[in-house]
Amino acid sequence: MKAVLIGLGSVGRGVAEMIATKNPGIAITGIADSKSGCIRDDGLDITAVLETKKRTGVCGDRSIGAIDVIEKADYDVLVEVTPTNALTGEPAIGYIRAALAKKKHVVTSNKGPIALAYQELSALAQTNRVALRYEATVGGAIPIMHALEDGLLGNEIIAIYGVLNGTCNYILTRMAAEGLTYEQALMEAREMGYAEADPTYDVKGIDAAIKLVILANTIWGSGSQLTDIDLTGIDLLTPDALRLAEEGDCTIRLIAEAIPGKKILRVSPRLIEKSHPLVVEGTLNALTLETDMAKEITLIGKGAGSVETASAIIGDILYIRNHYGERA
Amino acid sequence: MKAVLIGLGSVGRGVAEMIATKNPGIAITGIADSKSGCIRDDGLDITAVLETKKRTGVCGDRSIGAIDVIEKADYDVLVEVTPTNALTGEPAIGYIRAALAKKKHVVTSNKGPIALAYQELSALAQTNRVALRYEATVGGAIPIMHALEDGLLGNEIIAIYGVLNGTCNYILTRMAAEGLTYEQALMEAREMGYAEADPTYDVKGIDAAIKLVILANTIWGSGSQLTDIDLTGIDLLTPDALRLAEEGDCTIRLIAEAIPGKKILRVSPRLIEKSHPLVVEGTLNALTLETDMAKEITLIGKGAGSVETASAIIGDILYIRNHYGERA
Repeated sequence: MKAVLIGLGSVGRGVAEMIATKNPGIAITGIADSKSGCIRDDGLDITAVLETKKRTGVCGDRSIGAIDVIEKADYDVLVEVTPTNALTGEPAIGYIRAALAKKKHVVTSNKGPIALAYQELSALAQTNRVALRYEATVGGAIPIMHALEDGLLGNEIIAIYGVLNGTCNYILTRMAAEGLTYEQALMEAREMGYAEADPTYDVKGIDAAIKLVILANTIWGSGSQLTDIDLTGIDLLTPDALRLAEEGDCTIRLIAEAIPGKKILRVSPRLIEKSHPLVVEGTLNALTLETDMAKEITLIGKGAGSVETASAIIGDILYIRNHYGERA
Repeated sequence: MKAVLIGLGSVGRGVAEMIATKNPGIAITGIADSKSGCIRDDGLDITAVLETKKRTGVCGDRSIGAIDVIEKADYDVLVEVTPTNALTGEPAIGYIRAALAKKKHVVTSNKGPIALAYQELSALAQTNRVALRYEATVGGAIPIMHALEDGLLGNEIIAIYGVLNGTCNYILTRMAAEGLTYEQALMEAREMGYAEADPTYDVKGIDAAIKLVILANTIWGSGSQLTDIDLTGIDLLTPDALRLAEEGDCTIRLIAEAIPGKKILRVSPRLIEKSHPLVVEGTLNALTLETDMAKEITLIGKGAGSVETASAIIGDILYIRNHYGERA
């Protein structure tokens, strides 16, 4: 199996390192970062490329761009792991479109293209009889898409309820455990590296909402958009609200929920019994699928991290190899 | 897709009813209970067969046995859902062997054949290029085998920790919540229909151990047997032990664990932090998979029930249709 890797930030580096270390039978024949690229049809020396990147800041030749790698390299699957642009989805949408048009499979961790252009891109993949896989976009290493696609075959999915943002979950866990204010818990999350300098995207629920759009479109093909989500963040929660919840053996979590039968598509802080499987601690993510036959199934795991995200991406590549086969 | 159904107890009826109700594109061309059978190559009227069974106690002709259905019907997949015989695995092993030899796929909820004869049967399936699937044997509707097979591709499974017996989990939940003795909680479980008249199989940890054998053999191909499991039940636990655990924000659960690197294969009551995802309430089941890349992934859901088990079986049949294709 030959792959090209577009994006060499934390996720891309994780994917490259895991492939180099674990040798799962994937050759990387092209790599591009934001400034350069390199191509080698019989497989790049990944370790050497990563060292070059570390030493010089670029992974290859400045005259080679991402689109050159996508157009010119010899590969089966595009691994698109550039940063999410939640407003335009670009340049990732263009990269994915180009690869699909060349009848290449695509694996991405990028939420932008899947939240903004899912219908177009999945139709293009279908027309070209290739796979478009994006397990890494929601819930990190948790095999959510696999559960929906194969694990719960024959079930109708009635509703989904998710804890999909680790930053918010960490803040709420700390507010409940220590009686911290939102501001104190956010500062702690920043110190731990769980929150960014500008936490808006996480604490306002936007990141969770984008993931909810991806899940809803995957499950129900509903063509939902970010603007369809009823959105409330966690930034106005007080320690008192958490304390009151805890007194009733409940707690508060930022829950992303979709219930098509009730026309609910919402991200908001919700009171929830502490014994519910969705109540996870710290930066963990969790998703409960309510189905007609299997009833409630909950999946829990790490929602972020370089190696955890690489796990989802490598799993998608190997799934394509196992179920679509390699080229003759 | 054509299936024959061997076994028409609670699980078999659940499968038949769900196929009749949801019409997922599966025709049942043969059915056998312990006393009779019926065959119809263009598909039986499932509702009529179930009514006959209800009225007369048998589903068909007393001169037709299970093996006749397996040998003579026209089908793609054997659905084997007779009761588990944990000592011999029979007659199910014979049924499964006969179907695999005829190059038919097999889906089963029967723990006996998979715990006792996995290596022989999976080799036979491989030789005949057909599938042997058994999602329903462990954790009811929870897509555990799917997660292992597809969802965590590329990951090394380092250890597994499971709450695999709903009866024990119910008893422990009630002892912790209400300070009941083991005997009181067991009586309550019997009244709720969660425990059988003779609870040995559940409370001594045997059922959980059989499931652990199935998981260990699936993951590591280790050829483990029930006698390899270090086994302690929950029947000697006191309310004091539970109370002490709760005081330290912990509780006690019957945990089935396999850690090959430490040569651990054990079912025993374990002290566990209440915030751990494995701590589920009531009759729920849960399994934590510890992996190298995805880290800890926990799956939670209903471990028993007629419709829940049917979910796993129908999912396996549809998986075979999607990934092996129908006959030309």
